[in-house]
Amino acid sequence: MAKSNLPLDANRLWTDVMALAEITDPTRPFTRRSFTALFLEGRNWLAQRFAEAGLTTRIDTAGNLIGRIEGRRPELGVIAVGSHSDTVPAGGRFDGIAGVATGLEVARALRDSGVRLDHTLEVIDFLAEEPSEYGLSCVGSRGMTGSLDDKMLDLVEPGGEALREALRRVGGDPARLRQAKRDDVRAFLELHIEQGIVLESQSLDVGVVTSIVGIRRIEIAFDGEADHAGTTPLHLRHDALVAAASTVVAVRRIAERLDGEGDDYFVATVGILAVEPSASNIVPGRCRLVVDARTTNPALTERFVEALSTESEDAAKAARVRRSSFTTLSDGPPVACDPELRAALSQAARDLGLGQTDLPSGAGHDAAFMSRICRSAMVFVPCRAGKSHAPEEWAEKDEIAAGAAVILQAVKALDISLQKTMPAAE
Amino acid sequence: MAKSNLPLDANRLWTDVMALAEITDPTRPFTRRSFTALFLEGRNWLAQRFAEAGLTTRIDTAGNLIGRIEGRRPELGVIAVGSHSDTVPAGGRFDGIAGVATGLEVARALRDSGVRLDHTLEVIDFLAEEPSEYGLSCVGSRGMTGSLDDKMLDLVEPGGEALREALRRVGGDPARLRQAKRDDVRAFLELHIEQGIVLESQSLDVGVVTSIVGIRRIEIAFDGEADHAGTTPLHLRHDALVAAASTVVAVRRIAERLDGEGDDYFVATVGILAVEPSASNIVPGRCRLVVDARTTNPALTERFVEALSTESEDAAKAARVRRSSFTTLSDGPPVACDPELRAALSQAARDLGLGQTDLPSGAGHDAAFMSRICRSAMVFVPCRAGKSHAPEEWAEKDEIAAGAAVILQAVKALDISLQKTMPAAE
Repeated sequence: MAKSNLPLDANRLWTDVMALAEITDPTRPFTRRSFTALFLEGRNWLAQRFAEAGLTTRIDTAGNLIGRIEGRRPELGVIAVGSHSDTVPAGGRFDGIAGVATGLEVARALRDSGVRLDHTLEVIDFLAEEPSEYGLSCVGSRGMTGSLDDKMLDLVEPGGEALREALRRVGGDPARLRQAKRDDVRAFLELHIEQGIVLESQSLDVGVVTSIVGIRRIEIAFDGEADHAGTTPLHLRHDALVAAASTVVAVRRIAERLDGEGDDYFVATVGILAVEPSASNIVPGRCRLVVDARTTNPALTERFVEALSTESEDAAKAARVRRSSFTTLSDGPPVACDPELRAALSQAARDLGLGQTDLPSGAGHDAAFMSRICRSAMVFVPCRAGKSHAPEEWAEKDEIAAGAAVILQAVKALDISLQKTMPAAE
Repeated sequence: MAKSNLPLDANRLWTDVMALAEITDPTRPFTRRSFTALFLEGRNWLAQRFAEAGLTTRIDTAGNLIGRIEGRRPELGVIAVGSHSDTVPAGGRFDGIAGVATGLEVARALRDSGVRLDHTLEVIDFLAEEPSEYGLSCVGSRGMTGSLDDKMLDLVEPGGEALREALRRVGGDPARLRQAKRDDVRAFLELHIEQGIVLESQSLDVGVVTSIVGIRRIEIAFDGEADHAGTTPLHLRHDALVAAASTVVAVRRIAERLDGEGDDYFVATVGILAVEPSASNIVPGRCRLVVDARTTNPALTERFVEALSTESEDAAKAARVRRSSFTTLSDGPPVACDPELRAALSQAARDLGLGQTDLPSGAGHDAAFMSRICRSAMVFVPCRAGKSHAPEEWAEKDEIAAGAAVILQAVKALDISLQKTMPAAE
């Protein structure tokens, strides 16, 4: 259980999280979407807190808000802590925010205890981690890691504004985006709510993330014939929904088989299924579904897609429809968290007397992009009933503080240990 | 194959069908929905044709347009031929229209050949056979058979108008609705396009309808939990779509079993399936689907619903969700067509040298309501690829004429034979 004698101020950290959460669309709490006026209001509030904590504050050309305390040996490079302050529509108080506030509290706790690190410390609020109207997530961490290209900057939201323009509006500089790409960061640590129920169900304080899943999204469409539901005998039908329904059942069956094989995490979901023309008296002529498959082991994704391709084609044949699409919409590889950072986080949790477990992250995070330029790792804290991206998202004050203390102690340990190790291979 | 030496004017009949089809919303052919200005324009056009054919024309209190030629022995009662002139949105040229035009052509052909029936002949354009914005179908035939109650008249379309008002607008009189209920009709015959592919696939000219299916609609809803698709392990999910998909597969499997048992017609369809919240990265928390089951044998519906109830409950348990609804939305019993009328239609087809078969109607028709007050039967004519309720709906001139000739010959035969038989039990 979370301890009360932590090396930081749990109340101060909590007050920050609650204050930032209050900067929300009042008609739809908790909403502070990236690129909006409310988002900029939240960032102004954050920048003031950064400054009060003695951090030098700037916005990089990728639109990330960065607070910095120069180390005693700046040539060692940067240890960074952060997450994001934007939310989904009608999201929660903690997703992202808890991680940014943790970075801030780590800086303040170090200052309060008179500790100055050898490494430079940065606290980062990444721009637009959540999917925005521009159709892209992790905009800031992509920018910081050289993964934000011109095609992405040309993405346009429904109102007609390009991401390029939006980035300029929030203080970034798309023309000088390469300046945001970093080669001086040695380690990145991110605290986040779990968004699952593993920690809660096992009454644990923190999870040390082993890896962040890769996500592949596949669109499958079936084209049949929109016939009269009364006058078309069963054996003459071309029912697209029958094929789609068989495919949904197959997705679950294949996923359970792969997940049950060993230690690797595997989940697959059909979250979207649309029927046309969608009338009770018309045989469905067209069905489109989107499959979301996530795993820590890319080989499982390949086997999943192969089995799914066969089973969905079989389902089409059985229903006498055409599988008109089997298209990869997106494909991000899994990312393993850095072993040395994981070890430092585990040791910190042990030293603090916290209950901990290793666990994979089923959600994507800025840390996955940061791993492209530096050692990266994450700490999860429990959230009530696993609920996230919803107003009822909840984490306890002491739980967030315990996770933040793990980050703080790991930062202090890494400030020493990283001086003895080689930089991680890039 | 359809003959060219028919006892009526195929071109005149065809010209009527095409002319009425042209009275359409020009931006969305072929649309002439009941209660609209276009519908009234179509009716005015029809009333003129009725008058030209020597029919006495009126609108009854249920809003049906009726043309009448008094018989030589009016005490024998009425033989009626008809269908409906309203369409679905973006419907076809023939659904309903071909049947009304057939009634008109029967009256003209009798006049042209100097035949005056002993029975009174009525040509009926039933009001609002298709589902309208008021949420009710077969308004006119319900009214004529005493099946239109106050609750139905109180139905309101999205603009706020009650069906009662709309009925008044098109010339009906809801306050005197009981006057529309008939006890003097001895036989009702309706020609309709098949809306299926049985006749076309067997190269037959006409189908003599054995019975009109009963339709039961059942809403099933599953309530689970809308969890994160990445962070929620498979064994902790409450995925409503997995339960719904298993149910769709079960609907098809049960229906095939019942349809394969014997001579009874059975079809079942899931035409509507809605997923909430419908995001690729969220496990579906709620699913709603509508099952449409149709059969000529009500016992099969009872067995279908029993099996569906068990299988959908099992699907809910397996997916760890709650089956929150299993509700009958509507339930109309099947109607057997009158044996004597069927025999007269079959004999007429034989006499005309037409290829024919007996077949059930999978769609509902005004004839199903008319069977509540008189002997009723139907003739189907082929339509291309079974397409209906769509602009590409198509039937050939000679096919419609052949079906109309069957009705004409049957009317002449029944004018004699019905004088020898007792009225059908009511």
